[in-house]
Amino acid sequence: MAVNLSAPSADSLHPVAGVRIGVAEAGIRKANRKDLTVFLLDEGAAVAGVFTRNRFCAAPVQVCREHLLHSDIRALVINTGNANAGTGEDGLVRARSTCIAAARLLEVAPEQVLPFSTGVIMEPLPNDRIERGLPAAIADARPTHWLKAAEGIMTTDTLPKAYSRQVQVEGATVTITGISKGAGMIRPNMATMLGFLATDAQIDPKLLSELAFELAEGSFNRATVDGDTSTNDSFVVIATNQARHPVVTSFRTPAGAALKEAMLEVARLLAQAIVRDGEGATKFITVRVEGGKTAAECRQVAYAIAHSPLVKTAFFASDPNLGRILAAVGYAGIDDLDQTRIELHLDDVHVATRGGRNPSYREEDGQRVMKQSEITVRVGLGRGDAADQVWTCDFSHEYVTINADYRS
Amino acid sequence: MAVNLSAPSADSLHPVAGVRIGVAEAGIRKANRKDLTVFLLDEGAAVAGVFTRNRFCAAPVQVCREHLLHSDIRALVINTGNANAGTGEDGLVRARSTCIAAARLLEVAPEQVLPFSTGVIMEPLPNDRIERGLPAAIADARPTHWLKAAEGIMTTDTLPKAYSRQVQVEGATVTITGISKGAGMIRPNMATMLGFLATDAQIDPKLLSELAFELAEGSFNRATVDGDTSTNDSFVVIATNQARHPVVTSFRTPAGAALKEAMLEVARLLAQAIVRDGEGATKFITVRVEGGKTAAECRQVAYAIAHSPLVKTAFFASDPNLGRILAAVGYAGIDDLDQTRIELHLDDVHVATRGGRNPSYREEDGQRVMKQSEITVRVGLGRGDAADQVWTCDFSHEYVTINADYRS
Repeated sequence: MAVNLSAPSADSLHPVAGVRIGVAEAGIRKANRKDLTVFLLDEGAAVAGVFTRNRFCAAPVQVCREHLLHSDIRALVINTGNANAGTGEDGLVRARSTCIAAARLLEVAPEQVLPFSTGVIMEPLPNDRIERGLPAAIADARPTHWLKAAEGIMTTDTLPKAYSRQVQVEGATVTITGISKGAGMIRPNMATMLGFLATDAQIDPKLLSELAFELAEGSFNRATVDGDTSTNDSFVVIATNQARHPVVTSFRTPAGAALKEAMLEVARLLAQAIVRDGEGATKFITVRVEGGKTAAECRQVAYAIAHSPLVKTAFFASDPNLGRILAAVGYAGIDDLDQTRIELHLDDVHVATRGGRNPSYREEDGQRVMKQSEITVRVGLGRGDAADQVWTCDFSHEYVTINADYRS
Repeated sequence: MAVNLSAPSADSLHPVAGVRIGVAEAGIRKANRKDLTVFLLDEGAAVAGVFTRNRFCAAPVQVCREHLLHSDIRALVINTGNANAGTGEDGLVRARSTCIAAARLLEVAPEQVLPFSTGVIMEPLPNDRIERGLPAAIADARPTHWLKAAEGIMTTDTLPKAYSRQVQVEGATVTITGISKGAGMIRPNMATMLGFLATDAQIDPKLLSELAFELAEGSFNRATVDGDTSTNDSFVVIATNQARHPVVTSFRTPAGAALKEAMLEVARLLAQAIVRDGEGATKFITVRVEGGKTAAECRQVAYAIAHSPLVKTAFFASDPNLGRILAAVGYAGIDDLDQTRIELHLDDVHVATRGGRNPSYREEDGQRVMKQSEITVRVGLGRGDAADQVWTCDFSHEYVTINADYRS
């Protein structure tokens, strides 16, 4: 029951020159399921990644970090059904084994392969099955398989997530296409957040790591379903450098800025799609905090609101229970916060002013906004000019059902 | 459906010399409900308090802090039905008005009265009703009314919470009796956490603030239901100084240590009772983290586990879903955590070792522990000698129902 989200059509997803995608059924956890996806990249592609900050990061995340240090990446291998996390030294060996197997088939070095896993935690990766499935996945590789890939990486997602844009960069048409998955962090249908974004644009490779970080900051790092940072979260940016325009050496030029903005738009849609498809979500909520001293403190307050079970259940109930939002602002950890400067809006409705109820606020106005499927909570801290925002969803019976009842 | 908690009998609660308690029906939010409680203290009593760290603290909390700075407290006035929080300057005036009314009836100064409120947020305190109810509450005051008080301060609590102990202090029998309330932070039946602990022991007044802080640290500050710090949380320690023993001037002497330990035991039981009666709770969970560099970092990890919706729903499902616990350890915010040193026990079952599944762990053993109503999660960080623990409950459908459906 995703919030205002529908499956993309295959036609809407433009191929990216230099990227081919193949999907196979490897029987990793269940039979007859597309659970193995490969991205094959032409020589000359540049790749950067941003990974989970969870200290308990999965083996494939560790291997990705190593391989990104010094190699031209030529392939991505993504499996569902098993996260290869909490698996210690053995998990690292199995992730490396997958890379070696793919490298042998593709005639590249193992360090040129990035592994990604999502699924159950603390169980050995069945890398033999992955390795047996690789030839079929590679044989399936086509530039047009983006929708198939979006389906192939799904776990608890109810819908595939993929977006595509084209922009003009100095006379050339540049394509940006991406996919993502994730709906929470769950076992057995583990829903790690994964995002893959590819463009055929020519981008100075020195800029790519910083670009990946900034795109993640403006998209995936602002999305939260339940506050549980997964062990496997990964976001990868690929530039195949095949479009025919002068190399982008800065994102401050008009052409560079247009390219970056288009990439950010795709990344943002991919991240928001994860929240829209959040476990049990019935509402998509933007929490915007303004008037802070720094963006970091605005984010801190926004996360306190977005993670409060009381706020999230109030949204589920369509109840304008505004004290809960104010209380979350108060415990967000800003020690010198002056409560008499706090302002609160629900969309256009001015709910609280100077830390108390706005005299002209009427509960029926709050109620009207709370019934919407898309709501913006706007908090003013009254202590500076910084702002930031996060996206989240509400907290429903369905969330508990998904996360508690799956063994029954 | 509280977890292993039953209502105390009136007989089990020893009166504390110097403390009389009265309860009345003031019709604050609903008619025919005991919603106003007063504590009357003999001259010579010393009082200290620990209050919410929420920056959006309620008006009564602000007034309490002021009054505790410089006065001999002679009365506590506690109302349910309205929290007087998010009420700005007007809320402060109303809280002070309550103190003035009580002081007039008791012939003391307004600064000698402490106000406490719990109930809905952001609505004006009906202090006229409180003031009209005060004479009846005061007329009702008796040393034996502890159970009545425990009932009088309940909101969403399903059971009254009160404990009592007696210890020998240098030949004299000293009594410690306390009450608490709270089950989450909810509106309209707002469940702020309140705790009141009284003893007739003679304690050097200079020690009392520090004692209150340490008792809170060992009890209420280790209890969490949903992580939502209320705007009104208050814990008050009263020493009436009427027991006939030499004044306790240190808690390091055998007599002082015995007294403090007995007070801590009562405070701990009161705090645990709140978790046992947590909204929708079906399990009482102790999260103990050992082997940290500091107690603070152990607490940080313990709270990450205790607040994870995924961990809490796994407990509700009696599912030994251990990856969720490890993932919470990983995102708790210890940057230099070495995942290969993490150990995890569920009660006596050794689940994970060196960051991976313990080879001898069998899921049926984990399952057996998860089915219990009381569970201890023990995490070893392997980086030092510090330890700390918190108490929490699971996360059930009932929690969502209580917090989302009350308007229906």
